[in-house]
Amino acid sequence: MKTVILIGANGTMGKAALTGLGKHKVITAGRSKGYDFNVDLTDENSIAELYKAVGEFDAVVNTAGMCKYANLKDMTTEQWSTTVNSKMMGQINLVKIGLDYIKDNGSFTLITGILNKKPIPTAIADATTSGAIDTFVQCVAHELPRGIRINSVNPTVLEEAWEVYGEMMPGFQPVPGALVGKAFERSVDGFITGQVLVVDA
Amino acid sequence: MKTVILIGANGTMGKAALTGLGKHKVITAGRSKGYDFNVDLTDENSIAELYKAVGEFDAVVNTAGMCKYANLKDMTTEQWSTTVNSKMMGQINLVKIGLDYIKDNGSFTLITGILNKKPIPTAIADATTSGAIDTFVQCVAHELPRGIRINSVNPTVLEEAWEVYGEMMPGFQPVPGALVGKAFERSVDGFITGQVLVVDA
Repeated sequence: MKTVILIGANGTMGKAALTGLGKHKVITAGRSKGYDFNVDLTDENSIAELYKAVGEFDAVVNTAGMCKYANLKDMTTEQWSTTVNSKMMGQINLVKIGLDYIKDNGSFTLITGILNKKPIPTAIADATTSGAIDTFVQCVAHELPRGIRINSVNPTVLEEAWEVYGEMMPGFQPVPGALVGKAFERSVDGFITGQVLVVDA
Repeated sequence: MKTVILIGANGTMGKAALTGLGKHKVITAGRSKGYDFNVDLTDENSIAELYKAVGEFDAVVNTAGMCKYANLKDMTTEQWSTTVNSKMMGQINLVKIGLDYIKDNGSFTLITGILNKKPIPTAIADATTSGAIDTFVQCVAHELPRGIRINSVNPTVLEEAWEVYGEMMPGFQPVPGALVGKAFERSVDGFITGQVLVVDA
């Protein structure tokens, strides 16, 4: 049994990840109420405080990250900053800072999304930062010390989120959250590193 | 003959691009002296001023972008910001703002680099932002109006830069700048869009 910090556990993607973490001790974290610990990915001090508060842990699984949606022409500097600071730099800092706290042979699992491989209107910031994080995990894996691993899970839309996102994603086939949970499980319990675990139908 | 704005023309990569733009009217821009116009990619007003000052143009070719190099553990928040603001958001803003000024059927050609495909130590910010821009061009191409195209050139190290970068890139085969110039030419003079033009040996 591993101790796993699951960030964004109460969201749709967090619940999907949770289905793959059943054999572990899961500590939940997020921005709102209802988590074991609060954390703001855009605040490096908040990330460090989370790790200090948790103490020993084997894995970090992130399913949180704010993205703003607009066509390139209409996307404001602030919308880009929100997306870059949260989904991209937030996840990078989660790893960078986490290296000081995570146990030997631990793992980081980050979240991206299929829109960098199957583009749709208004999702350019989501796609661009997903591309950044997918690249980050593939490259940074080679420099992580102490047997620490890193992967990203890059899922298509979930069945559980289809009611919210279906209209903006015509022609996409949603997948069950439990299938995406398998990818999180494969990352946390496997030996792979530097991989982008695409879950698509 | 097209009017092409070449940013960073006096750098090694700029000179390589120039070898592929011989048949065009090239207007040079950059941060230092010796350019037709000055521009700072990290400043949206500066980008808009460049486009207003140039007037009519058919293509924008960027070969500039600041990257900082360090291991993930040692890379400071400021070093990440410098790289993200210049190489990533600077190039994105070059396109976003340029859409207001570029002629119908114009093109944008951005610069990335092979280190997102062949990672080396200390290059994680370079690799991550290259991954972001390669993804950006592949996705945003579908929403550009008026027949406007966009591609990125993703070259390995140039023969002309081997003396500077060779030591940090063991086992890489440098290519002549003129070969990379062909990729810029193919982007500017072709009909392709949403492509990552990898130039590697």
